[in-house]
Amino acid sequence: MLNNARIEEVLSTLDRGLPQALDRLLAFLRIPSISTDPAHMGDVRDAAEWLCAELAGLGFEASVRDTPGHPMVVAHSPKGQRRALLFYGHYDVQPVDPLNLWDRPPFEPEIEDTPDGKVIRGRGAADDKGQLMTFIEAFRAWKEVHGSLPTDLVLLFEGEEESGSPSLRPFLRENAEELRAGIAMICDTGMYSDGRPAITTQLRGLYGEEIVIRAADRDLHSGSFGGLAANPIQILVDALATIKDESGRITLPGFYAGVEELTNELRADWDDLGFDAAEFLSRVGLSQPIGEKGRTGLEMVWNRPTFEINGLSGGYTGEGFKTVLPAEARAKVSFRLTGSQDPEKIRETFRAHIRAAIPADCSVEFHAHGASPASRMDISDAAFAAAKAALSDEWERDAAYIGAGGSIPIAGDFKEILGMDSMLVGFGRDDDRIHSPNEKYDLQSFAKGARSWARILAALS
Amino acid sequence: MLNNARIEEVLSTLDRGLPQALDRLLAFLRIPSISTDPAHMGDVRDAAEWLCAELAGLGFEASVRDTPGHPMVVAHSPKGQRRALLFYGHYDVQPVDPLNLWDRPPFEPEIEDTPDGKVIRGRGAADDKGQLMTFIEAFRAWKEVHGSLPTDLVLLFEGEEESGSPSLRPFLRENAEELRAGIAMICDTGMYSDGRPAITTQLRGLYGEEIVIRAADRDLHSGSFGGLAANPIQILVDALATIKDESGRITLPGFYAGVEELTNELRADWDDLGFDAAEFLSRVGLSQPIGEKGRTGLEMVWNRPTFEINGLSGGYTGEGFKTVLPAEARAKVSFRLTGSQDPEKIRETFRAHIRAAIPADCSVEFHAHGASPASRMDISDAAFAAAKAALSDEWERDAAYIGAGGSIPIAGDFKEILGMDSMLVGFGRDDDRIHSPNEKYDLQSFAKGARSWARILAALS
Repeated sequence: MLNNARIEEVLSTLDRGLPQALDRLLAFLRIPSISTDPAHMGDVRDAAEWLCAELAGLGFEASVRDTPGHPMVVAHSPKGQRRALLFYGHYDVQPVDPLNLWDRPPFEPEIEDTPDGKVIRGRGAADDKGQLMTFIEAFRAWKEVHGSLPTDLVLLFEGEEESGSPSLRPFLRENAEELRAGIAMICDTGMYSDGRPAITTQLRGLYGEEIVIRAADRDLHSGSFGGLAANPIQILVDALATIKDESGRITLPGFYAGVEELTNELRADWDDLGFDAAEFLSRVGLSQPIGEKGRTGLEMVWNRPTFEINGLSGGYTGEGFKTVLPAEARAKVSFRLTGSQDPEKIRETFRAHIRAAIPADCSVEFHAHGASPASRMDISDAAFAAAKAALSDEWERDAAYIGAGGSIPIAGDFKEILGMDSMLVGFGRDDDRIHSPNEKYDLQSFAKGARSWARILAALS
Repeated sequence: MLNNARIEEVLSTLDRGLPQALDRLLAFLRIPSISTDPAHMGDVRDAAEWLCAELAGLGFEASVRDTPGHPMVVAHSPKGQRRALLFYGHYDVQPVDPLNLWDRPPFEPEIEDTPDGKVIRGRGAADDKGQLMTFIEAFRAWKEVHGSLPTDLVLLFEGEEESGSPSLRPFLRENAEELRAGIAMICDTGMYSDGRPAITTQLRGLYGEEIVIRAADRDLHSGSFGGLAANPIQILVDALATIKDESGRITLPGFYAGVEELTNELRADWDDLGFDAAEFLSRVGLSQPIGEKGRTGLEMVWNRPTFEINGLSGGYTGEGFKTVLPAEARAKVSFRLTGSQDPEKIRETFRAHIRAAIPADCSVEFHAHGASPASRMDISDAAFAAAKAALSDEWERDAAYIGAGGSIPIAGDFKEILGMDSMLVGFGRDDDRIHSPNEKYDLQSFAKGARSWARILAALS
């Protein structure tokens, strides 16, 4: 353990250097690294190069590593032997549409004053560029105080997190020796809703699917064909309407195999968080939880699987009206998974359900979009207690063990491929509007996030 | 009744005058009277003026009548007292995009030789300029033989049929006395699919509706909110999936009030047409009728009401995947109506059904798109038998009473506002490509169409 005096030096170094740290973050945010959009392929690489140069400037042995998709950035602290900690983040960002709902251009970020304090506004501010820069700034201050980086770090950044991480698993397999560490620190999550620092110890998995149903070989006039010819939108609607029953349960056979009830301990911890579902929903203009009957709000978002229609399109959707029977209809759907639910088995069951709804003269095509199981961490590992204490010190509030409704497949991949547990510490807020217009990251999250990492580094050194 | 000798004279006059008649039609087709496009406002008026001059030249009392939209053309045979017949057509045409799919400029019409005979190629050839010129040419030949026009005609031409006829109903109301006749002859339909002459005696009505369901006040991340927050796409899908049951019947309470079974006579006529639903569907790549169980194919498209989803959109529909719970979802739906179904009552029932599916914290907005009842003609009127016989004579095939799955709201408007029945006689073919690139009208349809009208005029005089 380092002595407290040096930790305080690192923290004051971070405080002094905040304006420069923000300049760096804004420069990073200006790179429109949208990984799902082929038009931004060059920008995604630019973001990787920017990150690599930044890390090399800090003395890391850093490189941009090609994959069949967008590149990885890998960095090591010099002469490291025992790799205690792997840090992970992603430098790609979500698409920005609908662009007209942004109050400012998404890739012209700025520090804004708001009634709740200063925020960093722009696509990627919270997800995940702002978050990954918290630990990079902690390393920078650490080096400034100690004259060198911690000797036991490996850093991994990917550019495909927002597009299903197709290259990640092969990359982990091919570079397992280089990347394996004692534990993975993943900075892509949030604090508990009221700003309480938190370590996320379980994550839902995700299985996504795109469905294309085709009927006639051209758009038809509903006057001539309506009532006689198949309408692919109706077929799609009928098939999707039967996935959930009245009580909110998913009806696919075998779907709940592997779903686990909360331990009494975690149920007590979660109850202690005082989550108010109606209040939580009221922040986005809603009031009623729509999940399975008989479940608490936190169970609904953290510990229960879901089915969601994320996108649907078919027929005429412009101004006015067109009495068309379209040739095709499309949907993008996803399942959030918990416990040990098997995404591949669920994919087969779901596809069979849809196929059974397709008339013989129509066709269906599927496009898989990711399939990752849920993750649950072993919180009996001493590192969890140490990090929890460090977070509590920085924020002057008891840090909490929480769940996350979203998927961070990387945690499952680290476990499966590298045999590593992950610790998920992040400083996002519920109102960060990630994946939505006007994404932001609180300046406090950024500043105290970096300080939190300095404390955790000290506690785990 | 006129004697047969004079009819034969009129017919031979038409045959002799065909080249000149085609020249007139081509001149008319050269006027790009696209009513939906404000850039063509002057062209639409030019077409009205052209038509008015043509009718005045024949001795009609013709005038271009202004409306808040495009003008009407009204003409009377001189000194007419009893107005036995009103003839209706529309001189506006559909837009021409996609222009690159036309084999020749849409407004440079020409007579083309094809393997199936000569055709008049150009926008409006079949819909409706070529059709309305069939009766005008019949009037011309009539006058040439008899020295005067029939004394009991009123003609009405509109220039907004392809853009929803916004001025029509007010115009009918304001000019009811002038326009009311014994029966309306509407020339805007086709022959039966195999080219058999036909009188369309029933048309389905149409009620269209756009639905906008709104949930959260922004797009949400399905990781953070999935399982807890309402998804407007799911709400829409669930609501639309319950409109029809397994057997294809519409479940809205009271929906079938006013729907009538075919008379035995009409059922026999339709059965005699030998409609093969599988063959009809095979032309568009399908094979299975999807309508109500226990109904024939012609019943499905002509005599049964339908519910169709014409467009649906919500969430992320671009490339790749986005795990979003969208803020809103939209659908455009329509019902085809038969018998005496009341569109306004069905609108109320449908809206109530959708409203009942909306959670208390979500909202729904409706936008009405048209509501016209079905039309059924009284075929016991002697005029129908007379016209049917005249058509059978001209085409040397038994003319058929048929239905139409689409809506021609003018027939309902004549009934409702002027108290007149309509007789729908037209010479279009299924392959005329109306509303599509490369529209055409068979030269045979044009020539024998004019001869058909001459015979019908004689039979009804």
